[in-house]
Amino acid sequence: MSGDLDATHDPALRSWVPGADGHAAFPIQNLPFGIFTPPDGCGPRGGVAIGNRILDLGRAAAAGLFSGLAEQAAAAASADTLNSFMGLGAGPRRALRGRLSELLRAGHADVATVAGCLHDAAACVLHVPARIGNYTDFFVGIHHATNSGRVFRPDHPLLPNYKYVPIGYHGRASSVLASGTDVRRPKGQIKPLDANVPRYAPSERLDYELELGIWIGPGSALGEPVPIAQAGDHIAGYCLLNDWSARDIQAWEYQPLGPFLGKSFGTTISAWVVTPEALAPFRIPQPARPDGDPAPLPYLLDAADQAGGAFDVVLESLLLTPAMREAGLPPHRLAVSNTRYMYWTAAQMVAHHSSNGCNLQPGDLFGSGTISAPTADGRGCLLEMTFGGRDAVTLPSGETRRFLADGDEVILRARAEKPGAAPVGFGECRGRVLPAL
Amino acid sequence: MSGDLDATHDPALRSWVPGADGHAAFPIQNLPFGIFTPPDGCGPRGGVAIGNRILDLGRAAAAGLFSGLAEQAAAAASADTLNSFMGLGAGPRRALRGRLSELLRAGHADVATVAGCLHDAAACVLHVPARIGNYTDFFVGIHHATNSGRVFRPDHPLLPNYKYVPIGYHGRASSVLASGTDVRRPKGQIKPLDANVPRYAPSERLDYELELGIWIGPGSALGEPVPIAQAGDHIAGYCLLNDWSARDIQAWEYQPLGPFLGKSFGTTISAWVVTPEALAPFRIPQPARPDGDPAPLPYLLDAADQAGGAFDVVLESLLLTPAMREAGLPPHRLAVSNTRYMYWTAAQMVAHHSSNGCNLQPGDLFGSGTISAPTADGRGCLLEMTFGGRDAVTLPSGETRRFLADGDEVILRARAEKPGAAPVGFGECRGRVLPAL
Repeated sequence: MSGDLDATHDPALRSWVPGADGHAAFPIQNLPFGIFTPPDGCGPRGGVAIGNRILDLGRAAAAGLFSGLAEQAAAAASADTLNSFMGLGAGPRRALRGRLSELLRAGHADVATVAGCLHDAAACVLHVPARIGNYTDFFVGIHHATNSGRVFRPDHPLLPNYKYVPIGYHGRASSVLASGTDVRRPKGQIKPLDANVPRYAPSERLDYELELGIWIGPGSALGEPVPIAQAGDHIAGYCLLNDWSARDIQAWEYQPLGPFLGKSFGTTISAWVVTPEALAPFRIPQPARPDGDPAPLPYLLDAADQAGGAFDVVLESLLLTPAMREAGLPPHRLAVSNTRYMYWTAAQMVAHHSSNGCNLQPGDLFGSGTISAPTADGRGCLLEMTFGGRDAVTLPSGETRRFLADGDEVILRARAEKPGAAPVGFGECRGRVLPAL
Repeated sequence: MSGDLDATHDPALRSWVPGADGHAAFPIQNLPFGIFTPPDGCGPRGGVAIGNRILDLGRAAAAGLFSGLAEQAAAAASADTLNSFMGLGAGPRRALRGRLSELLRAGHADVATVAGCLHDAAACVLHVPARIGNYTDFFVGIHHATNSGRVFRPDHPLLPNYKYVPIGYHGRASSVLASGTDVRRPKGQIKPLDANVPRYAPSERLDYELELGIWIGPGSALGEPVPIAQAGDHIAGYCLLNDWSARDIQAWEYQPLGPFLGKSFGTTISAWVVTPEALAPFRIPQPARPDGDPAPLPYLLDAADQAGGAFDVVLESLLLTPAMREAGLPPHRLAVSNTRYMYWTAAQMVAHHSSNGCNLQPGDLFGSGTISAPTADGRGCLLEMTFGGRDAVTLPSGETRRFLADGDEVILRARAEKPGAAPVGFGECRGRVLPAL
């Protein structure tokens, strides 16, 4: 299974690529896949991050560096999207990872050939790595569900279905953006509580949400649920996801059919696809459910998933305002959380999503929903952090925020680390708010 | 604007294609576009329906039958999806329609060449005509919103936002199916009112929904709302849409984020794209809002849209059970309704969808939501017709139905007709229920 550790995980592995060893995100034990445009401008293409470099998979394939399953995977991953590569599944992906680890390892026999396939990452542009057929956003961060539910329903923040159903809804795929793309503040229908009628105006309650993104690999046939024991095989990798949210638009529109324009103006993701293999050392048992919580229904229950289907990955959100930028201040940390606070595992999301026969496709994207920690310093959106806009947050610049201001930049980061394993990062998920038109 | 009538609408026009004149759906005044596989099996390709034939656009283009804008449009419409053609917009589409009308008109000089490009429609397979980037389902049938709202909220069936917001939600694009494809009864979490906990089981309350589908043509840029006055230019055509719904799954899962697995197991559409030009004779003013209803906010209000943005198209839903089929009985009409019962126009849906800057893309699909008539014989889903399953419907076979049984086939039809215009049909939207796995 994808949790197995092999030579590619050895924390003692060293790379000949300058800056890769000790790199905070992309040491040789990570090797995430992505789509980039190199400085020569020659079309988007597949690559692998190693330190501050990107290995050009098409160029490496042309140099004859791959054979067998790894060659098949490299050919798919050389395209202008990763959809085909994702669709190949774990076997070819692991074969390619194994070969890439060999090629980039200190002591490799033909460093010159491989070095000729590297680009300076800082000179490349990263793209959304797949053509996203469908994007689904879940709601599995139970502390977020509780905190945000309390804003709207103080007496029963968690609805009766929450602990049975991995709640999710369909999101908008066309407005998923790669990290670094500015996001325009949306206009929409807004009805303040003290107004009789709504008006069409720029959102005054623009928020972010700290989420884990999940990329779907092999698809499933329409009408055929994916059994929970096989659900993990349908996951191609992970990213960070900022589900920008206009709380005032959302509050007025969302009954009875759920969030729509309060979300669909933009969703930002980190561009690298961190593989299940890279995260294997950081798997943990699914945290025990609190006393009194029901067990998952059988179609969501699998011993291996319970034993190792969750992850220990630290998540952070940070804010950088224009004034902070001018003053030379670093981004201010808003929240620190962890993927361990997901009430449902990624495999449970896959099994549930397909439980009615809905077909999955390579390149589908899931969002976890906001992952908040149970502590006050771990609230993964401003709605929670400010109690619905009641209490302002004070920043190191002396500024305050209840919601996001124009020019504000939200930065999400993720980092997996533990003794005996090389750290694995995701790369940033970053976006700046442009003023409304 | 697309409401203009020209020579292609002349009800006196005759076609040399046998069976086209007087054809209930596809006389020469209609000319809908679609994607089909001909009997020779040579890949999906673009075509136009004329009577019981399909004109093969690629073959006609190769025969040199087009020039200028029409040639550009025919090249795009010859592909294996209509996305590029839809993206071209009204100018090329109208040029192609004009030329097709000439080629298929009685008296055309070179009938032999055009006849060589026709296929027998009964021998062809029709496909979903575009790669659907995103599918959005609206809720603009006010009688449906009222009737179905009453089932859940007897005291306030319409929520306060309904008359301000063209309510919509994102649907699942991967499970949109062409007419004729069987649909598997979904399983899902179901919690009867008298049960303490849900169970995972086949849906016992499987329903259909009678909807109009709207195809998006030219897209819009992220961050830039489409003004209501230009919204019509973004519509490529119309179809019928059956939004299959598992009411028991939906009822348990839908709070707080809306419908998800109760809908995503399948959505059936009629395969032909009926153009705005074909429907131009059937445009009507937007029906007056009842006294006391608010005016649309300015971003949804346009004089031309108010004057002619609605349609007079009769919609029908029919049911054929296995027993009826065996007894040689015809399909039984469940409901007759009309697109005039949409509270919002298609242009208002486009303007609203993009009002937050959400980008539209060629080949996006909108559903109207169930369009019910105000009368008892016009309830466009079983939930409404049976008052939430309380009152069974009796069929000509003596059978009764509260919800759909295995083997049941739902058929949607649409027909526009009025004195002084040739009738225009949509082709059927048909799907049969397979038993749960």
